[in-house]
Amino acid sequence: MSERIWTAALVVIGDEILSGRTQDKNVAQFATWLNVQGIRLAEVRVVPDVQDAIVEAVNVLRARNDYLFTTGGIGPTHDDITVDAIAAALGVQVIVHPAARAALERHYQTRGGLTDARLRMARVPEGAELIVNRVSGAPGIKHGNIFILAGVPHIAAGMLDALTGTLEGGKPVLSRTIGAWVAESEIADMLGITERAFDGVAIGSYPFFRDGRTGANFVVRATDPDILNACADMLLAGLGDKGLEAFEGGI
Amino acid sequence: MSERIWTAALVVIGDEILSGRTQDKNVAQFATWLNVQGIRLAEVRVVPDVQDAIVEAVNVLRARNDYLFTTGGIGPTHDDITVDAIAAALGVQVIVHPAARAALERHYQTRGGLTDARLRMARVPEGAELIVNRVSGAPGIKHGNIFILAGVPHIAAGMLDALTGTLEGGKPVLSRTIGAWVAESEIADMLGITERAFDGVAIGSYPFFRDGRTGANFVVRATDPDILNACADMLLAGLGDKGLEAFEGGI
Repeated sequence: MSERIWTAALVVIGDEILSGRTQDKNVAQFATWLNVQGIRLAEVRVVPDVQDAIVEAVNVLRARNDYLFTTGGIGPTHDDITVDAIAAALGVQVIVHPAARAALERHYQTRGGLTDARLRMARVPEGAELIVNRVSGAPGIKHGNIFILAGVPHIAAGMLDALTGTLEGGKPVLSRTIGAWVAESEIADMLGITERAFDGVAIGSYPFFRDGRTGANFVVRATDPDILNACADMLLAGLGDKGLEAFEGGI
Repeated sequence: MSERIWTAALVVIGDEILSGRTQDKNVAQFATWLNVQGIRLAEVRVVPDVQDAIVEAVNVLRARNDYLFTTGGIGPTHDDITVDAIAAALGVQVIVHPAARAALERHYQTRGGLTDARLRMARVPEGAELIVNRVSGAPGIKHGNIFILAGVPHIAAGMLDALTGTLEGGKPVLSRTIGAWVAESEIADMLGITERAFDGVAIGSYPFFRDGRTGANFVVRATDPDILNACADMLLAGLGDKGLEAFEGGI
């Protein structure tokens, strides 16, 4: 593909993911949202609530991707160190953002007032802008190509919603999924030949076992709808040649 | 804590996770299993089915952790490149492992025989041992401190089961979870003071919104049960001092 590909990385910050206590839901959510923006999620790292680990991930990933997103660690408690870590990564000071302070004062006006702990949520790396949080008090933060979002999935979703359409991207990746009741090993050669017959297309093969039967879904991905359809049609024909019923949309 | 801490990293290999098509379930499963072995999951990376990306992640993470696990990309199709990528990372050849070939021959004896595509699943980096796969045909692979496992969660689970008790580790991390119907910002100072009162303990604060109410669960983690209980009891007392009902086990 000759068109420019826009990429993003995601750093999931949180001991709760690495301990197994919490099942991550942000990776899939961010991947899906980014694709609609025409941006490919190129890599994800899950790091603990440790400043050096955050700094390393942020500095490597912001340099080699168009956008870097982080989730987690922007609340009011002692384990919320994302803002400090990213300021350290950028080599800037942490300041209290006036508009964030005002937003928190409004939010907590009827909830006991703005305490020191709550004021922590107005702290940003110097030079940052805010991302609207329609769900709870603490805003998200944008600094250059870094987007600092909440870890709680439905709050992160609201922040992504506020960012929809504001990021420059390329063409979204389109996909067609085709399923068949077959062991992927039986059609591996045909799959590879079908993928190699087209430029700018990738076929993923995802086997499963259900109701005592072996099956697989084949996901064809491309940004060009004509190439996508030509490749998917060749795959359908290939399955048919082997006497297999193909299920458009997957099994 | 003065005792040795054993760490592992996990590299999740798969375009299907980065596209948002598949919700990862291996991170939480591996984290939980590792903790029982006395090994801490220190970092996770999700990388695409691209050799350079796999090589980079494997070489960085195997050097700075006691163990490195990978999931995904060990099937028979063209997008299964994990073995080749890890052999490249290690600077060794890919060979067909005789015992893996024999296992696949047995597995496929009544399933159409061992084709070239299926034989791909017997390929290992030279010098590797096998990890028993009780669920399907392709074995897992161990090479030095690298453990190459399946991506399908229940197959990976079977391979982890085969490894249970075989890895050297330290003390498992113990935890107690205490919940309260409180905004975490209201007790942030007390939480920080409580954590700092003990060595070798960490308190994570995980807010939620449920049934129109704000609450949080506080997870106290330590390897020493006495320290764990002393810290959790101090937290219970601190919540009581604020007139809050504390829920052992979390809300």
